[in-house]
Amino acid sequence: MSTGETRPPVSGVRAGIVVTGTEVLTGRVVDRNGPWLAERLRELGVDLAHIAVVGDRPQDITGALRFFRAEGVDLVCTSGGLGPTEDDLTAQVVADFQGRAMHLDEALERRIWAILEPLLTRWPDLDADALRHSNRKQAVVPDGATVLEPVGTAPGLVVPPAEGADGPTVVVLPGPPRELQPMWGAAVETALFRDAVTGATEYRQHMLRLFGIPESEIAATMRQAREAGIPLDDLEITTCLRRGEVEIVTRYEPRYQTVYEAFDAVIRERHADTLFSDDGTSVDLQVAALLRGERDAATTARTIAVAESCTGGLLLGRLTDLPGASDYVLGGVVAYSDDAKQRVAAVDPALIVQHGAVSQAVAEALADGARSVFGADVGVGVTGIAGPGGGTDEKPVGLVWFSAAGPDGARLTRSITVPGSRTDVRDRSTTVALHLVRRLLLGER
Amino acid sequence: MSTGETRPPVSGVRAGIVVTGTEVLTGRVVDRNGPWLAERLRELGVDLAHIAVVGDRPQDITGALRFFRAEGVDLVCTSGGLGPTEDDLTAQVVADFQGRAMHLDEALERRIWAILEPLLTRWPDLDADALRHSNRKQAVVPDGATVLEPVGTAPGLVVPPAEGADGPTVVVLPGPPRELQPMWGAAVETALFRDAVTGATEYRQHMLRLFGIPESEIAATMRQAREAGIPLDDLEITTCLRRGEVEIVTRYEPRYQTVYEAFDAVIRERHADTLFSDDGTSVDLQVAALLRGERDAATTARTIAVAESCTGGLLLGRLTDLPGASDYVLGGVVAYSDDAKQRVAAVDPALIVQHGAVSQAVAEALADGARSVFGADVGVGVTGIAGPGGGTDEKPVGLVWFSAAGPDGARLTRSITVPGSRTDVRDRSTTVALHLVRRLLLGER
Repeated sequence: MSTGETRPPVSGVRAGIVVTGTEVLTGRVVDRNGPWLAERLRELGVDLAHIAVVGDRPQDITGALRFFRAEGVDLVCTSGGLGPTEDDLTAQVVADFQGRAMHLDEALERRIWAILEPLLTRWPDLDADALRHSNRKQAVVPDGATVLEPVGTAPGLVVPPAEGADGPTVVVLPGPPRELQPMWGAAVETALFRDAVTGATEYRQHMLRLFGIPESEIAATMRQAREAGIPLDDLEITTCLRRGEVEIVTRYEPRYQTVYEAFDAVIRERHADTLFSDDGTSVDLQVAALLRGERDAATTARTIAVAESCTGGLLLGRLTDLPGASDYVLGGVVAYSDDAKQRVAAVDPALIVQHGAVSQAVAEALADGARSVFGADVGVGVTGIAGPGGGTDEKPVGLVWFSAAGPDGARLTRSITVPGSRTDVRDRSTTVALHLVRRLLLGER
Repeated sequence: MSTGETRPPVSGVRAGIVVTGTEVLTGRVVDRNGPWLAERLRELGVDLAHIAVVGDRPQDITGALRFFRAEGVDLVCTSGGLGPTEDDLTAQVVADFQGRAMHLDEALERRIWAILEPLLTRWPDLDADALRHSNRKQAVVPDGATVLEPVGTAPGLVVPPAEGADGPTVVVLPGPPRELQPMWGAAVETALFRDAVTGATEYRQHMLRLFGIPESEIAATMRQAREAGIPLDDLEITTCLRRGEVEIVTRYEPRYQTVYEAFDAVIRERHADTLFSDDGTSVDLQVAALLRGERDAATTARTIAVAESCTGGLLLGRLTDLPGASDYVLGGVVAYSDDAKQRVAAVDPALIVQHGAVSQAVAEALADGARSVFGADVGVGVTGIAGPGGGTDEKPVGLVWFSAAGPDGARLTRSITVPGSRTDVRDRSTTVALHLVRRLLLGER
């Protein structure tokens, strides 16, 4: 049924990740830690097979730890469950799992208090007893564990198996990404961690990004590469469709470098017109660099402004996501009502009457309006029907018109009918708009 | 170390979820299926302990299935791996796991072709052979499985254990949420699914949302409730901090209704000033209903417009996220540069010179400007320093000023210093702004 899988390289060192939290299990919070830790482990050459997302029940956390021990992994990283509330139990559960008693680390308690005490000034109504209670709870640690200093208020832990016992070393990290990420470096530096990952394999990884083709075309290319004798089984190739772009990620051991290069050459030859990134950069970063005049043929810095309708601010939100965006983003208008298109984005109301608000003419007028209202070099106009209501036979839900206008009459305009939900249409449209701006800045006409 | 966990109710029927895809494992795609399926299973009274996120390697998918079988679950749901590419192997892996051979379902192949054929018109360059190959792959199904009709092009499957064997029934669903979610209803209706979940326990669930207090205060309240004799162990209580709000989710069997009511009363009494939602509604939905004149004392519909700086379009993006937002959102301006604040949001440049762009005066001027420029009833102004650069001792990174202005001189203005990264500051600020608008619409002054 399949022409064959790409057989992955397997490292000598294996790890598992346990993400705890009922709020993550039920999706009220999106897990950012599992994938982030996965990437860090891969960079270290550690093979990762599973992320287990578990609720806050001790038996479920223990179940995941037991699974990883049974799978024979060398290292387990946990995130979450180190906070002050009653459902934060990870330290105790991991201690029990490793057969280690807990003790109060009084010096650690004092260091945490030095972090907490200023909160009493900031929140005068705060219950000082509650805070001291949280403080003490967070300073109780398993015997034999290495403590990782708190980034917020919760210390992390590296907990080895009991003396003489087999099993994985467990790295216990806090849930908030802004605490977990800075703490990772300290975890990696501990002797316990280093011991656990001795012998990890080196991997290389490359990402290619394409825009404007269906994923099935990549499948066909891979079949052709295989038929042409390229041993793709030596590579771990993953393709995925993300925000309207196809990403091809290839990971391999250094000895398969020439196999990768052969595969890479096939992609470049067959998909030259849609391959836009071979250095890991997103279209967001490329547009930012082009606007700064620091990429490809773009040697002149440009400012940009947006007039968007159906995307409702998301294109501007995406353009301003990068630090320093104020160097080139002057601003924009969200012209949701027809009246606003006229009053704030300088769209001639006759165009709306004649062509409708979702039309090539209005997209171009929005792009021109953005340029003139903000005095920007580049103007972008987006107008469409995000749904779920408002569609007609002639102009269905998902129809979006885009226009990008630059100096000297440069202009690119296109429409696309984006499938999916209101959220899909709005999000995907920001990708299409960025690619249009990229092409304009690269000089396509 | 802890005053005790909340012991959760355990249903007689247990399930596991396997989310497949190296792109999910490595975080290039955020998993939306695991949490969504978790909620659906909980609604059915099925107890869920783990979501396993696994790469595309067959042995890793099998490892997760073996884990769930060893844990004794009755049902496993998988998502992903049904697509046309070579790394899409889930159907084969599940068939092998259940000890079932595969066969080509020719009628299914024809039904899938009827979906695929029109693509050849839409993408004239498409490789028809590649498409037929994908078609056939997706129509090869395990013996004895119930086929779930494709929503996209991939059929789902409900695959029972081999005749006479024990083990979970496996529901195989596609990865794209827009295909998985509509297919779920069909899966639940199959006889195989119904048999697997016979005897599930009923649960009730309530969510309370609070804004403006630290999570540790809830921990203190729970200790007090326990000391007052409320048996919280009969409830499964989860607290979490999400986008600046504290959520308390309580799940319990119907026989503990009075315990829940006692706990609920304690929260309402101690946190009356910060509890803003007891019916599951988000602040987004509340603001939308207030603007429509359909909630609380708000009987007059109002229009809204925004002038935002550091949030760069995200507040508008959030306001326009809800279907039908065009009924009350007129639009807004993202006034990133000082010049744009003056030209597009009608801010007196003297205010910027005198007070600085991040100041109470400019936030108020932006709110007024949004009202006047768009002719809206309510105007919102946001100006702050998202970072990582641009902070000073007096005005640090994270300082954001908010103002909401309504008819008859109504106005609320506040500042907050938001901790965290640029992304945190921008996202959290949209929450603060929505709460300010909510209070204004509720008549607070």
